[in-house]
Amino acid sequence: MNIREIKLTTNPGATLTAYLPEVHSELSNIERRPGILVIPGGAYMFLSAREAEPVALAYAAQGYHAFVLCYSVGKEHHWPQPLEDAQEAMQVIVSHAEEWKVDEKRIAAVGFSAGGHLAAALGTMGSIRPAAVILGYPCTLDSLGKILVFPVPGLLDKVDEKTPPVFLFSTYEDDVVPISNSVRFLDALNRNRIPFECHIFQKGCHGLSLAKPLTSAGFKQNVEEDAAKWFELSICWLHNLWGDFPSEHSKARRRADDMKEYSVNVTVESMIGNPQVKELLLQVAPALADPDMLDQAAPMTITQINREIAEEYRMTQQQMEQLNAALKAIPYI
Amino acid sequence: MNIREIKLTTNPGATLTAYLPEVHSELSNIERRPGILVIPGGAYMFLSAREAEPVALAYAAQGYHAFVLCYSVGKEHHWPQPLEDAQEAMQVIVSHAEEWKVDEKRIAAVGFSAGGHLAAALGTMGSIRPAAVILGYPCTLDSLGKILVFPVPGLLDKVDEKTPPVFLFSTYEDDVVPISNSVRFLDALNRNRIPFECHIFQKGCHGLSLAKPLTSAGFKQNVEEDAAKWFELSICWLHNLWGDFPSEHSKARRRADDMKEYSVNVTVESMIGNPQVKELLLQVAPALADPDMLDQAAPMTITQINREIAEEYRMTQQQMEQLNAALKAIPYI
Amino acid sequence: MNIREIKLTTNPGATLTAYLPEVHSELSNIERRPGILVIPGGAYMFLSAREAEPVALAYAAQGYHAFVLCYSVGKEHHWPQPLEDAQEAMQVIVSHAEEWKVDEKRIAAVGFSAGGHLAAALGTMGSIRPAAVILGYPCTLDSLGKILVFPVPGLLDKVDEKTPPVFLFSTYEDDVVPISNSVRFLDALNRNRIPFECHIFQKGCHGLSLAKPLTSAGFKQNVEEDAAKWFELSICWLHNLWGDFPSEHSKARRRADDMKEYSVNVTVESMIGNPQVKELLLQVAPALADPDMLDQAAPMTITQINREIAEEYRMTQQQMEQLNAALKAIPYI
Amino acid sequence: MNIREIKLTTNPGATLTAYLPEVHSELSNIERRPGILVIPGGAYMFLSAREAEPVALAYAAQGYHAFVLCYSVGKEHHWPQPLEDAQEAMQVIVSHAEEWKVDEKRIAAVGFSAGGHLAAALGTMGSIRPAAVILGYPCTLDSLGKILVFPVPGLLDKVDEKTPPVFLFSTYEDDVVPISNSVRFLDALNRNRIPFECHIFQKGCHGLSLAKPLTSAGFKQNVEEDAAKWFELSICWLHNLWGDFPSEHSKARRRADDMKEYSVNVTVESMIGNPQVKELLLQVAPALADPDMLDQAAPMTITQINREIAEEYRMTQQQMEQLNAALKAIPYI
Repeated sequence: MNIREIKLTTNPGATLTAYLPEVHSELSNIERRPGILVIPGGAYMFLSAREAEPVALAYAAQGYHAFVLCYSVGKEHHWPQPLEDAQEAMQVIVSHAEEWKVDEKRIAAVGFSAGGHLAAALGTMGSIRPAAVILGYPCTLDSLGKILVFPVPGLLDKVDEKTPPVFLFSTYEDDVVPISNSVRFLDALNRNRIPFECHIFQKGCHGLSLAKPLTSAGFKQNVEEDAAKWFELSICWLHNLWGDFPSEHSKARRRADDMKEYSVNVTVESMIGNPQVKELLLQVAPALADPDMLDQAAPMTITQINREIAEEYRMTQQQMEQLNAALKAIPYI
Repeated sequence: MNIREIKLTTNPGATLTAYLPEVHSELSNIERRPGILVIPGGAYMFLSAREAEPVALAYAAQGYHAFVLCYSVGKEHHWPQPLEDAQEAMQVIVSHAEEWKVDEKRIAAVGFSAGGHLAAALGTMGSIRPAAVILGYPCTLDSLGKILVFPVPGLLDKVDEKTPPVFLFSTYEDDVVPISNSVRFLDALNRNRIPFECHIFQKGCHGLSLAKPLTSAGFKQNVEEDAAKWFELSICWLHNLWGDFPSEHSKARRRADDMKEYSVNVTVESMIGNPQVKELLLQVAPALADPDMLDQAAPMTITQINREIAEEYRMTQQQMEQLNAALKAIPYI
Repeated sequence: MNIREIKLTTNPGATLTAYLPEVHSELSNIERRPGILVIPGGAYMFLSAREAEPVALAYAAQGYHAFVLCYSVGKEHHWPQPLEDAQEAMQVIVSHAEEWKVDEKRIAAVGFSAGGHLAAALGTMGSIRPAAVILGYPCTLDSLGKILVFPVPGLLDKVDEKTPPVFLFSTYEDDVVPISNSVRFLDALNRNRIPFECHIFQKGCHGLSLAKPLTSAGFKQNVEEDAAKWFELSICWLHNLWGDFPSEHSKARRRADDMKEYSVNVTVESMIGNPQVKELLLQVAPALADPDMLDQAAPMTITQINREIAEEYRMTQQQMEQLNAALKAIPYI
Repeated sequence: MNIREIKLTTNPGATLTAYLPEVHSELSNIERRPGILVIPGGAYMFLSAREAEPVALAYAAQGYHAFVLCYSVGKEHHWPQPLEDAQEAMQVIVSHAEEWKVDEKRIAAVGFSAGGHLAAALGTMGSIRPAAVILGYPCTLDSLGKILVFPVPGLLDKVDEKTPPVFLFSTYEDDVVPISNSVRFLDALNRNRIPFECHIFQKGCHGLSLAKPLTSAGFKQNVEEDAAKWFELSICWLHNLWGDFPSEHSKARRRADDMKEYSVNVTVESMIGNPQVKELLLQVAPALADPDMLDQAAPMTITQINREIAEEYRMTQQQMEQLNAALKAIPYI
């Protein structure tokens, strides 16, 4: 994994921290990974560490490139500075999509509380928008804007036809951001025919983050076994939207008798009975003379074996093609 | 998160990559994190990327410091070189425990296939041992040693009274490492009264890693919805052994009438009715004159508010003590 | 389990089928069970078998007394006939609470589609109301009433302060009952400060019932792995409201050395070393002379053993008291 | 659901209680249900109610016909009387397969503790065997036979090639039936190449049953959140063996423009624009003149509508065929 901190140019202090899982040839089904922009809360006064890296790592563990946005807060930074930061963050991700192997069509944003306001603002008003938005106990109503350090717009009337699908979770018992912020935002989405999923748990206080001891800061109210299901539900929702990583290949277990020929793509066991094949294989892989080694190799094809062994033993593409031709030349009996 | 690659001195090429989640004052319940040493498989011929970083990130997302061991493989590196590498890795972790904030009493090792052999060897024969061992479809029998690039010891007779608790998962249908490697190792643990947990799923091939598309390399056989539960089960097992991060504090919601005095540790709402208190609070926080702001502050204590607001507004420890003394001096009515 | 079909007197054809799990002395923590009234949907034209018995059995398996309501449907039965049926069903359950061992303070209603309308009507307008309401893709709006075989009231303005807590699930993609029926009902609940939990899954068609093959009638659209989580979530919600069955007792594993005396309430193993105790126990239980039997008995107390053995061997209350007195009379060493 | 108690003829007092979920035409994908024989434990001295009906209801809720075996216990009933009872129970189920709609190829047995011994004996020695065996903390070793009220055979050497696949769960900490009973039985299965799945949880005492408060008899040791996963895992295992109920049909949402003709099998909305179709439909269903009713009907086909409406409105098969012919006769435009 690579960790990079990028200074944003919009506002002093704004940064984007990228968590980029490694690209590896063995993970050959993963060309580009989806990305997720993590926007912590903190009443536009501070940035909650409980809603930053732990959330980024949770998505990174699911295969996402994760990006934590450190945006402008405090009374000296007025709206729309945070939105400018978020927009630049999106732009940074998109412009590095090729380099970082991010799938630019699958970039989500997840925000909590005031960060949920910002994620929702990015999804409804942003000049560059995520393709999916995940909101945790978000602020969406005008009335909340009044009590923050600087006024922020209510978002109900900002929902438009370009707003991406939304996943929202919150708790009925939240006594900091009233649940009407969730209910009325769902209503606005529905009126605009924007697809959504929502999980409002009855039990749970404001600011749950992942709702686990890890993000509890030691407070038992921040641990909720039921509400903690939101994270896994958000992954299922993203998979429904975008699919998971491809995994449709079958391990080739074709046999010589299925194919009526010998080749590098049928199992060793299905062709080793032919003396000519055996002789040929022992030439290229003398280790197969060892019965134990042969047992190990038997259920695999030469192609599979060549992929799995250490590089020092591996045949080149050309050698493989020669071997394949030689095998095919042996009459199938 | 910090990522560090440490060269091990035991053998050329051996390295330890550390994934160190950030230490942050807001996550005040996390002084030290447990650690986990991830040992990928690959028949002692190569190191499977599918069983390395993705597994490390999965544990890191649960709050662990994770360490991927790149140990000696290939025919030029004979046993016990891999064990030497693993032992040095343990030593590196322990010696950096203070610096990296690792809880040295809670270091686990997780290994897969040949890496499972190495993790089990570390747990049974290691000069320095992990406090818990997690084995995925491990090799444990003499017979497997014969077919590897170099001979390795069978582990049944290595289990001793210092062996830590073991969590083992594998699949009955594994046609590469026979399931007797699991069953007979459980028997050896049991004879030595070493506690264990085991999940042998009937369905599933060898080499599942996390059994998800992420680690499938594109093969559908590497995705198994049932067997994929092993990871979550391993976390539950570790929590049963060691507990989760502490989260026993209650958010202070003490009221002035509970305490029969005013202070920074009772809710604003429970003391603001007293005119002297109100006057004092408006002096230190004029923003409370705004009814919306007061509503927001009402359910919190001054201590909580001071922790949550941006640094620029925050009172110093000394200011807090002065305010507390002033509040306590006001007669409770 | 007892199954009973009760004819309701309100309307011809209306019945209540009770699924009453057995009362058994060994399940001594279960004095009364919560009840659940299951109200299937069917557009007030028919009753869906997919939303009746399978749902009742799902709750029965969780320990609930379940009751399936067969209410008046079809164009000859006008509103409020279905509500009358539901009210009588509630009355039947309450009036049999003592006989059936139902906890009358913990009776929930669960309804689907039109049955969700009826369950919500029972909760908001009923003369006798459930203590919790679970709604699956319910009809709540005026507009739906118009297209049914008989007009039914919209429910938004029926929510009052006596409405019990509500658990609601539905799917955004439902193209039969628009999702506004859910969103606007949540809004009505919120305006009336009625606690709720809601799970609106984006994916899934109308009429999912349990969303499993069992209730699919063979249609793959009726199977939704994500939406199927609603059932388990509803159980968690009910447990949060009412608690689960009590399970706070510790198995007595007190030892003689803890108590500084011998008795029927300390483990056999902790007192068998005393020759007087041994002689006494062998008199009342000669089988303990067999070392294997003794091994079996060792970790238990006499009280536990007496509860678990077959009736033919069991000591009477009086015999136990005599034995206890005799044990206590032996000086503790 | 039908509940029936059948007296077995083998031994006095032996009975079989059948829990038979209803057969209903709407659940058209369920012709035959799998069956499960539930065998409670109790040291061959008594029958534990905690391992009887609650387990039967858990499987019944998953769609199984469940059968609780009340077999011979106590010192007057010697082995093989319990096995005779179990065999007759199997015979009773098989002989009623047609009447009860049990799929006789998919009958499992589940047993706990001594009942696990009996279930395993039925699977390894039975004259008539289940097709799958589920064992909870079973007794399998000779040594346990000695301490029971009558001697029972050890089962390790009884495993043969006709033994069905086995699912086994238990807990390492069980201090009543040592875990070697599990480990050595797995070894016996493996030596005989009998497929198995096993979940040995480290934490948990003997006799957990479903490991939930429902089956705890009030003891907190009988509640184990982790071990409680065995039940769901057993369902997944059974689905892997036998599949779930079929659910492969698509809800027909064919449109007239897909088929290039009008018929009862295309959506109303896709043909109502044709004036001849509209006239014809209004003749057979005048209610469609109501725009709201038409809205409701629009996304469905006539076939679907006819299946869902109340019987009083439903067209006969013949009427449907006539209507279909008439629709097809209208030229598609």
